[in-house]
Amino acid sequence: MKNILIIGCGLLGSSLLKSISKKKIAKKLFIYEKSKSNIAKIKKLKLPGKIVKSLKDGVINSDLIIFCTPMSEYKKIILKINNFISSKTLVTDIGSSKIQTSQIIKKFLKKDIQWIQSHPIAGSEVSGPEHGKENLFNDRWCIIIKEKNTLKKNINIITKFWKRIGSKVVLMSAEKHDKIFSITSHLPHLVAYNLVKSAQDFEKKQSYDLIKFSAGGLRDFSRIAASNEIMWRDIFFNNKKNISKAIDLFINNLNQFKKDINSKNNKSIIKKLIQTKKVRLKIIKLKQDIDKPDFGRN
Amino acid sequence: MKNILIIGCGLLGSSLLKSISKKKIAKKLFIYEKSKSNIAKIKKLKLPGKIVKSLKDGVINSDLIIFCTPMSEYKKIILKINNFISSKTLVTDIGSSKIQTSQIIKKFLKKDIQWIQSHPIAGSEVSGPEHGKENLFNDRWCIIIKEKNTLKKNINIITKFWKRIGSKVVLMSAEKHDKIFSITSHLPHLVAYNLVKSAQDFEKKQSYDLIKFSAGGLRDFSRIAASNEIMWRDIFFNNKKNISKAIDLFINNLNQFKKDINSKNNKSIIKKLIQTKKVRLKIIKLKQDIDKPDFGRN
Repeated sequence: MKNILIIGCGLLGSSLLKSISKKKIAKKLFIYEKSKSNIAKIKKLKLPGKIVKSLKDGVINSDLIIFCTPMSEYKKIILKINNFISSKTLVTDIGSSKIQTSQIIKKFLKKDIQWIQSHPIAGSEVSGPEHGKENLFNDRWCIIIKEKNTLKKNINIITKFWKRIGSKVVLMSAEKHDKIFSITSHLPHLVAYNLVKSAQDFEKKQSYDLIKFSAGGLRDFSRIAASNEIMWRDIFFNNKKNISKAIDLFINNLNQFKKDINSKNNKSIIKKLIQTKKVRLKIIKLKQDIDKPDFGRN
Repeated sequence: MKNILIIGCGLLGSSLLKSISKKKIAKKLFIYEKSKSNIAKIKKLKLPGKIVKSLKDGVINSDLIIFCTPMSEYKKIILKINNFISSKTLVTDIGSSKIQTSQIIKKFLKKDIQWIQSHPIAGSEVSGPEHGKENLFNDRWCIIIKEKNTLKKNINIITKFWKRIGSKVVLMSAEKHDKIFSITSHLPHLVAYNLVKSAQDFEKKQSYDLIKFSAGGLRDFSRIAASNEIMWRDIFFNNKKNISKAIDLFINNLNQFKKDINSKNNKSIIKKLIQTKKVRLKIIKLKQDIDKPDFGRN
């Protein structure tokens, strides 16, 4: 890798900047960011890399371009960079859903350019360059999307890049990716947003001041329900077919739970509550979460 | 307060033991525990207090009895202690739902005994005396249930007790309590159990190994879905009317979300996602959660 351009410098973009710089992965590092407030933050924080004023400046000088903007920005930026990108330049991104992006790339990106999609499973409820962390991707999974026409050589470059960042890499198709993450990420976020929304509705209707009693469970969900709204709108819209199916499965199961509760079906309830417990143990064993009660809060 | 008996020494019972002992709240401290494995743990951990072999030994020597067993045990224990409890003895508990317990007390407890229900909003996904923490109740809310016949003198004793433990006290009716916690605690637990169950169903159906990708959201829910099954079965059964209503509200909202996603209703989605974000800020401001991204995990 020689020169890298990061387009969009929020939480993930700034974390990549820090990691690339610390690990000396790029010879030159460029940042393109359209938000003036983010540019001011980047300067104040003295983040590594050179801020380019035009996309062209960054694109023509880079071997790898990493899209770190909301996915709804991709099309517009693709149409711009088509005018000056060289066929030697490789493109990737960090977006959380893949089929829709795949279609946009196929439809709009100049034919001789390869864009290999990435999805590092890292992030948090906060946004913006001020929250960037050099180790955000360390030991986290990064999914790389392998499509029929993807050149092995380019897969290798992207794989090597993420491994140097510190991630564990796995290849899969866009279809499999979007199915898996509709369950492990998109549905959980939707359910968290929906739970907090329901609590707000209830509070309004009952005039009870209930948020102060959120330590009994609601507060866990409120973290995820504080995630960036543009990012999550894009994910919900882009992966709507799989998310719709996930919602149906979830509602069917919830209705069954309700039935079991109302009929006091002890055997069925206990079986479920014991089964679900196993997932936590598996997650801890797979080192996908901290091994402390209550997330080690106290 | 002179002598205190803790019945049931799991996470909350053992935390109370430690706190009562550390703060010298009782002259004598007794423990009644029916599980042999827990008794062995209590001895090994050298928890403060004297283990009594019979309920009678503990009850006749105590001024305050605190039920820390699953709620489904209350009736059986009440019927036993009725035989030897003195009218000078005050009873409380730490159960998470209140209307049903209220009815059991009214129906089965000897008429001259006062039981003032408490609900400290503290706990975690782990169970057992080995997890007890002296500061579990510090700065946490404790709800005290005030009923028509509750003597003010006794409310004062129980209030003083929890304040000495370190909690902030609020009084409310069993009805209001069960409504509020159906939303802030019971529904979140049910939804977490149901989400993990849905992920398990999906994994089985698709033969995808998806738990390893749980860092995108699912892992937050898995913590709550690892909570004690007996405790939560009891809560779901005891508060089934309010929980049923909460489920209906939740499903209605989720169907609306699904509709908005499928029709790409940008305005409605963005409005919801911005609104729900505010709850996190409020929770942090009210000091009901840790003020660090990602629960300060990394």
